Amino acid sequence: MKIIFGAFMNYSIVQIHQLIKRSLKSFRFRKNPPELYQPFGYMLSLGGKRIRPLLTMMSYQLFRNNVEHIIRPALAFELFHNFTLIHDDIMDAAPLRRGKETVHEKFGEHAAILAGDVMMIYAYELLNSVNAKKKTDVIAGFNRAAIEVCEGQQMDLNFEKQPVNIRTYLKMIELKTAVLIAACLKCGAILGGASKSDQEHLYQFGRNMGIAFQLQDDWLDIFGSEKFGKKKGGDILLNKKTFPLLKGIELSKKNNDQRLIDLLTADHPEKISRVIFLLNEYTVKIYCEMEIAKYHSTALKHLELVRVKSDRKKNLLQFATELIIRDY
Amino acid sequence: MKIIFGAFMNYSIVQIHQLIKRSLKSFRFRKNPPELYQPFGYMLSLGGKRIRPLLTMMSYQLFRNNVEHIIRPALAFELFHNFTLIHDDIMDAAPLRRGKETVHEKFGEHAAILAGDVMMIYAYELLNSVNAKKKTDVIAGFNRAAIEVCEGQQMDLNFEKQPVNIRTYLKMIELKTAVLIAACLKCGAILGGASKSDQEHLYQFGRNMGIAFQLQDDWLDIFGSEKFGKKKGGDILLNKKTFPLLKGIELSKKNNDQRLIDLLTADHPEKISRVIFLLNEYTVKIYCEMEIAKYHSTALKHLELVRVKSDRKKNLLQFATELIIRDY
Repeated sequence: MKIIFGAFMNYSIVQIHQLIKRSLKSFRFRKNPPELYQPFGYMLSLGGKRIRPLLTMMSYQLFRNNVEHIIRPALAFELFHNFTLIHDDIMDAAPLRRGKETVHEKFGEHAAILAGDVMMIYAYELLNSVNAKKKTDVIAGFNRAAIEVCEGQQMDLNFEKQPVNIRTYLKMIELKTAVLIAACLKCGAILGGASKSDQEHLYQFGRNMGIAFQLQDDWLDIFGSEKFGKKKGGDILLNKKTFPLLKGIELSKKNNDQRLIDLLTADHPEKISRVIFLLNEYTVKIYCEMEIAKYHSTALKHLELVRVKSDRKKNLLQFATELIIRDY
Repeated sequence: MKIIFGAFMNYSIVQIHQLIKRSLKSFRFRKNPPELYQPFGYMLSLGGKRIRPLLTMMSYQLFRNNVEHIIRPALAFELFHNFTLIHDDIMDAAPLRRGKETVHEKFGEHAAILAGDVMMIYAYELLNSVNAKKKTDVIAGFNRAAIEVCEGQQMDLNFEKQPVNIRTYLKMIELKTAVLIAACLKCGAILGGASKSDQEHLYQFGRNMGIAFQLQDDWLDIFGSEKFGKKKGGDILLNKKTFPLLKGIELSKKNNDQRLIDLLTADHPEKISRVIFLLNEYTVKIYCEMEIAKYHSTALKHLELVRVKSDRKKNLLQFATELIIRDY
């Protein structure tokens, strides 16, 4: 096990990203029956930021060069993520994904269930390429996150019918989104030969970053400008219980103020603007930003504690900074 | 690696079966959210013959004692099988499974999709207990079968809309049913330290036995007595294209006889008895039995070729003989 420090050939984020895109394009899966593999290929062709393999490889690169050695386990995380998207879209009856028809919309629900299933198996096939010494730890890290992602999705489904508070909401986004990001970073570290303590710091870096990222998504829906491509207030129209809305409800309850709750349970032509008006009255924007900043800074603290030279951390630091857009 | 021949303590089929039942009962999975894990536990509580772990362990026992050492990977096959049942039942809109409500019927389709997903992940978690030396081979064998099972299920779905011939039908049951049985036997052999050649013979033993078993299931539906619990002619009513029907169609086409095809495409109050009458006219029963016997004897030939003492083969031989009920 050779760890080369010093004059290392580090890949830039862009270079890793290109490597991932090329590898995904040339990823060979079986072809028959086409009714199974066309939805599979279609889903992967929809694009996306490929954040999960990117993080896996950046984490590995803290400790070792030649990130191309771990392209297969890194892609396992992308496949797993895409599998969850296919099945989640069925449950959400979502018509669109990345601006195009969802898999179940285009190929039917049964084909979508099966294409998702087989995609998960392919993820494990990619993981099986890891060398014997590290395989148990990598698969264990992957499985824990995979199980928790399912738990998070079930919690999210429950929220359609059950009352939600901020604590359970944060737990849900941790499971549904953050733990997979965390597992990418941890598994990258395992593959790179990191110590247990560094593995754990990278896990916590990812977990906190994932939560911050999701909270920012909630923030953008309500307080963001339209430039991020999403229609403002979409979560409000869909009656989604996101952080800003839950915070608004919490604060108005404390004030015995029924207005926000009435507005959220009714259909009003100016629902979005009125809800946002009330949230601003309760300075919810600032509460959100404080919460995002809290998770973001905890994440960075964990990255700081990883015991490698700071120039090796540049990529992850840049990524974490750019991920949390500070236009507030 | 110690292989004890000679005075070995071999478990009987009944003993292995009890071990599997006990282990499944005490199998610990997480509990929250209950909306995810109740369907999970419900599915496992429905029972079943537990053939897959049984075969895994019997195959292992050809080479080694202490089958209890491989209970976890053996159960992985049972979990995977149950995952496929949950998802297949959704696609087939089946109301009942083993005489009880199907998972999606009892808990809703979304919970059933997710419970299936998480059950597959638990299967891999169990496989991850295999020691590092054998893990890659075991997971590879498992994955190949898992992928093929999805392909077989997609082929089966296609058959609802596409014309089917006997060749593609046999391919479908091979993928949907036989390869998983084959993988159980192969993985049991890998875990037992078998040679590549013995692994392959056991794979082929399982593959051929699986096909014979499915063909017998088709046979029973049409020519069997009612004592096996299934209502006779169910496949005919559901317009399923099973081996006897495809053989009947093939033979009547050769004879330019339109009667069977007309009957199958129409709704007739005496459809079942009339179809069976025509199938008997074409001696389809004998064709089926010849086909079953062909796969069964090929299976037994492969078992014979496994290079272990014949007294070690008793369990598998007994099982294979009992599986194919010779009341014809």
